Amino acid sequence: VAHVYEPNYDVAHFSHIELLTPRPEESQRFFTDVLSLQVVGQQGQSVYLRGYGDYERSTLTLTEAPAAGLGHAAFRCASLAALDRRVQQLGDAGRWVDGETGHGPAYQFRGPDGHLFELFYETTRFAPSASERPYLKNQPQRLPHGGARARQLDHLNLLSSDVLRDRSFFQEQLGFRLSEHIVMDNGRETGAWLRVTSKSYDLVFTQDATSARGRLHHLAYRLDNREDVLRAADLYTEHGIPIENGPGKHPIGQTFFVYVYEPGGNRVELCAGGYQIFAPDWQPVRWSEAERARGQAWGAPTVASFHTYGTPLLNGLSSTQENR
Amino acid sequence: VAHVYEPNYDVAHFSHIELLTPRPEESQRFFTDVLSLQVVGQQGQSVYLRGYGDYERSTLTLTEAPAAGLGHAAFRCASLAALDRRVQQLGDAGRWVDGETGHGPAYQFRGPDGHLFELFYETTRFAPSASERPYLKNQPQRLPHGGARARQLDHLNLLSSDVLRDRSFFQEQLGFRLSEHIVMDNGRETGAWLRVTSKSYDLVFTQDATSARGRLHHLAYRLDNREDVLRAADLYTEHGIPIENGPGKHPIGQTFFVYVYEPGGNRVELCAGGYQIFAPDWQPVRWSEAERARGQAWGAPTVASFHTYGTPLLNGLSSTQENR
Amino acid sequence: VAHVYEPNYDVAHFSHIELLTPRPEESQRFFTDVLSLQVVGQQGQSVYLRGYGDYERSTLTLTEAPAAGLGHAAFRCASLAALDRRVQQLGDAGRWVDGETGHGPAYQFRGPDGHLFELFYETTRFAPSASERPYLKNQPQRLPHGGARARQLDHLNLLSSDVLRDRSFFQEQLGFRLSEHIVMDNGRETGAWLRVTSKSYDLVFTQDATSARGRLHHLAYRLDNREDVLRAADLYTEHGIPIENGPGKHPIGQTFFVYVYEPGGNRVELCAGGYQIFAPDWQPVRWSEAERARGQAWGAPTVASFHTYGTPLLNGLSSTQENR
Amino acid sequence: VAHVYEPNYDVAHFSHIELLTPRPEESQRFFTDVLSLQVVGQQGQSVYLRGYGDYERSTLTLTEAPAAGLGHAAFRCASLAALDRRVQQLGDAGRWVDGETGHGPAYQFRGPDGHLFELFYETTRFAPSASERPYLKNQPQRLPHGGARARQLDHLNLLSSDVLRDRSFFQEQLGFRLSEHIVMDNGRETGAWLRVTSKSYDLVFTQDATSARGRLHHLAYRLDNREDVLRAADLYTEHGIPIENGPGKHPIGQTFFVYVYEPGGNRVELCAGGYQIFAPDWQPVRWSEAERARGQAWGAPTVASFHTYGTPLLNGLSSTQENR
Repeated sequence: VAHVYEPNYDVAHFSHIELLTPRPEESQRFFTDVLSLQVVGQQGQSVYLRGYGDYERSTLTLTEAPAAGLGHAAFRCASLAALDRRVQQLGDAGRWVDGETGHGPAYQFRGPDGHLFELFYETTRFAPSASERPYLKNQPQRLPHGGARARQLDHLNLLSSDVLRDRSFFQEQLGFRLSEHIVMDNGRETGAWLRVTSKSYDLVFTQDATSARGRLHHLAYRLDNREDVLRAADLYTEHGIPIENGPGKHPIGQTFFVYVYEPGGNRVELCAGGYQIFAPDWQPVRWSEAERARGQAWGAPTVASFHTYGTPLLNGLSSTQENR
Repeated sequence: VAHVYEPNYDVAHFSHIELLTPRPEESQRFFTDVLSLQVVGQQGQSVYLRGYGDYERSTLTLTEAPAAGLGHAAFRCASLAALDRRVQQLGDAGRWVDGETGHGPAYQFRGPDGHLFELFYETTRFAPSASERPYLKNQPQRLPHGGARARQLDHLNLLSSDVLRDRSFFQEQLGFRLSEHIVMDNGRETGAWLRVTSKSYDLVFTQDATSARGRLHHLAYRLDNREDVLRAADLYTEHGIPIENGPGKHPIGQTFFVYVYEPGGNRVELCAGGYQIFAPDWQPVRWSEAERARGQAWGAPTVASFHTYGTPLLNGLSSTQENR
Repeated sequence: VAHVYEPNYDVAHFSHIELLTPRPEESQRFFTDVLSLQVVGQQGQSVYLRGYGDYERSTLTLTEAPAAGLGHAAFRCASLAALDRRVQQLGDAGRWVDGETGHGPAYQFRGPDGHLFELFYETTRFAPSASERPYLKNQPQRLPHGGARARQLDHLNLLSSDVLRDRSFFQEQLGFRLSEHIVMDNGRETGAWLRVTSKSYDLVFTQDATSARGRLHHLAYRLDNREDVLRAADLYTEHGIPIENGPGKHPIGQTFFVYVYEPGGNRVELCAGGYQIFAPDWQPVRWSEAERARGQAWGAPTVASFHTYGTPLLNGLSSTQENR
Repeated sequence: VAHVYEPNYDVAHFSHIELLTPRPEESQRFFTDVLSLQVVGQQGQSVYLRGYGDYERSTLTLTEAPAAGLGHAAFRCASLAALDRRVQQLGDAGRWVDGETGHGPAYQFRGPDGHLFELFYETTRFAPSASERPYLKNQPQRLPHGGARARQLDHLNLLSSDVLRDRSFFQEQLGFRLSEHIVMDNGRETGAWLRVTSKSYDLVFTQDATSARGRLHHLAYRLDNREDVLRAADLYTEHGIPIENGPGKHPIGQTFFVYVYEPGGNRVELCAGGYQIFAPDWQPVRWSEAERARGQAWGAPTVASFHTYGTPLLNGLSSTQENR
């Protein structure tokens, strides 16, 4: 029996992500020199970055750590009242923390699989300096001169030991809507795509094929179009960065993608295209085991590492090299 | 003093539009043969059409009439309760009507400038036949074989004798959010872009430079990408359909566009790209008279007819020919 | 020691190809309904087709035969004198034949591996009917309404038991220029890309991994741009046509590609992009075994069937199914 | 009566252009910072630049001068013998000069309208340093990190007081082939597109609407695709560089374009797409006055300055500002 979760609009969007990296300087160079993000600040072991299309001050925090992985992922609520409602709903599962640079107080909690999340409302808008001011006023910042020109943070994909449990938690507690999911022949749900915006997904849970918990599959920044994704692939090869997967088109979400590992070991997607969901009563698209066996949208098989590689890495998977 | 309108989520999306046309057969051929829409039904003087990416049964109604213009524009609400709330808010300004083919009871009312609108909730989803079934299950219908491959209804632009009044009505009564607007040096608002989704606009009001009321500026269908818009321009020239404006890029919305008049005389846009708004507290972008004088996003002057041509046509403007 | 072959300009371009197919009706439907070619004539067991950008009457002949494979491939010479010079050079290796529909007398000969070739000069230009006339006079025919809109014949890839021998023959006898080649560590040349135009290749020989001779690897039609290739991939999946390889980017030629088998079994590429060669003293680019092991331009491994599948099929390889 | 000029292949391609600029530093910054060209050397009042796809050491020379305009335009011949043949043909109209940095001895001559040309054969290939080495060996240099990523020099458009005379000179003396031309109702030829490669044009003459002689209309660098042209337009606006024309599609050549003036005042095009000519007996496409009145490929009127603005500027036209 399928539960019916009443969606709400209290969570507005995926706001930022903290990535842990054992190679902070190289990770920073990857995001600035190749992806065109900009450093906006630094505090303790963390550096804050943004895409030119992000309206908030920063969307990525790089924090030095012994191993790669997810620090935390944060969602901005629609209002202070919305934030309060969600905190009430979550009960005493979490705790209030002072916001890091760039936003106000945040309610921090762990999802069922152990991932660390934050909800907040008060934020700092990016205010461009004179030289950063764009020609078009509806763009937060001028177009970067070079690199892949990642425009804005798009979505987050988390590995989970129990996809159904995790996605239900986000539906029930936070009002996320289910867009698409994969259900194997044995009834196990192995992937779930959730949204809080008109984009077909903002948060994804996919089955961890290992016994690990709380791992990160990837984060994604959005490019303007598919030619930009093809160009990013050129830039990756010119920079000697091996491409794990793509460019190609996902059947789920119809997203055009290219994946690499940033130097710290975390998987990063650049994406474009995809479809939008406007129906208030959208019926989640359910993909069967047989349908998934057809591979990507144009038939390309999904690379093996896509099912096993996540961060933090597991014993015996100590480097990206071994996974390729 | 700016009014602060509390947005709500009761209106889910722009659902369909009824176009009046004095040349119904030619209009239908334009939408099917050039734009790749599909006829799904017929009733009385009306024909119902859809884009392959529209999840509802139809998004365009072509109705034979003595003159071109807007029949009505309909928005689907988020739920029956949401529909009720909006009808309460509107008071006795409108009336319930039986839904036309494809949707349930609708509340019909006139906007301040005289345009006819409908709100409804119950709808008919498109169910593809075996031959219409897409390869990708998250697509309502398979890709059209030919033509411009218009994917889905995108937005509506209405001429108004008082833009500020009309856009405030939609904010106040229906919870629309203001994304961008143009305010002349004399304080007059001459354009307002409103949204109910994450797209930067779903409904636009622009100043009617004539003394007319209740006119249509254009409706727009979305294509997958900018190359598709360039290709549509090729198809227009091959079909002998004069292009009024574009291909080009609007500064507002950053939309890539091409405009023509369908044979009945109504202006039709094909669009791609643009940006999305996720900020729950978005600050509307205000464009000044001087900024508008810079033309389109890359400096091209806006064509003169863009400011004067609308449907129904006015005396002395009896054909598209005279306006070009 | 590398031989130095003096290029000449006697061969103007790759003009047309005859494909053998055991399923002529299905093959024809593939080329017309999916690739947008047009049938311009029929004679005996052959049907003649063209892309809308081909200036000659036809560029593809489909001939019913017990097995798939290459009928013949024809190159148009720069003039009657040029044709005579090449025939002199070839000596009595071939013979004059009456041209098939669409061109004049042709000199027919077999290449070293057994492939059948023709040289000719006199041709029939395509003359569009009133309804086929394009908007732009520099285009032979109006843009097709639907399908993948294959623009023009681009190149030919032939499997060979001895690549060095075959490419040297075309350099020596016909003035082709070598653009790129692959030379294994053992000194064996396994691929050679030759040109007679500014495109980086018009004719390719690649090593047949089997003991077969005279086989076809693929023929290619050119699309306008890379988005058209991505769209063609969508159309292939909608038509239930499995994609063997791509969309992707070849390192050699930098061509953006997608490959399928037409219903008769012959491999067909749709391509876009690539680079051009203007240097009169171009130094052929030599790829080593290690460099080839890096896969396609963005690292994707080349599909296994790409090295073994060709037409005619070999015993035990009687259907495309078995090769996938 | 039309003269029949026998084409030959002695001229291989348009090799480089010397632009005169009164603002050498700003011009250099434009070409390096916005168009992504690279400075490879300097000599006297000249700076030498290249696109990453140019195989020769440099394709653009910027020379400080009191006024903007064409220094000289150079074509590389197919061989030393070919160079000799062309010099013989030209008779004593010109003189041998020491090649500037980057190439060997050149034969310098003035065309009928006074433009200065050079023919040469010996050249210097670009040899990338370790950090400039591309991932793909068939590319002369790695992809630039930023800017518009102009790939290679494409073509040259010269204003002429007598188009028919100038284009006939290049056909007769140098073997150029005529691809397309414009002939007014009064019989006057006002534009001629000539080629020496498979591209549909390498050199263009267009009617100077003023009484000036020997002026430059524009030079063009090629981008990889049309999305790159749209992106270049974004970069131009971000850099505060007014766009004179485009992005749009020319009917002649089917080229996708965007035009600006570099800071010295010379017009510069970035282009992509277009068609190729393989027919050895191509029939030049003749456009009538009425056909030209249809505007660009999609109907946009050609900007007025396009017909009058050239460099050197004429009295009263001392700055780009006055022409806009």
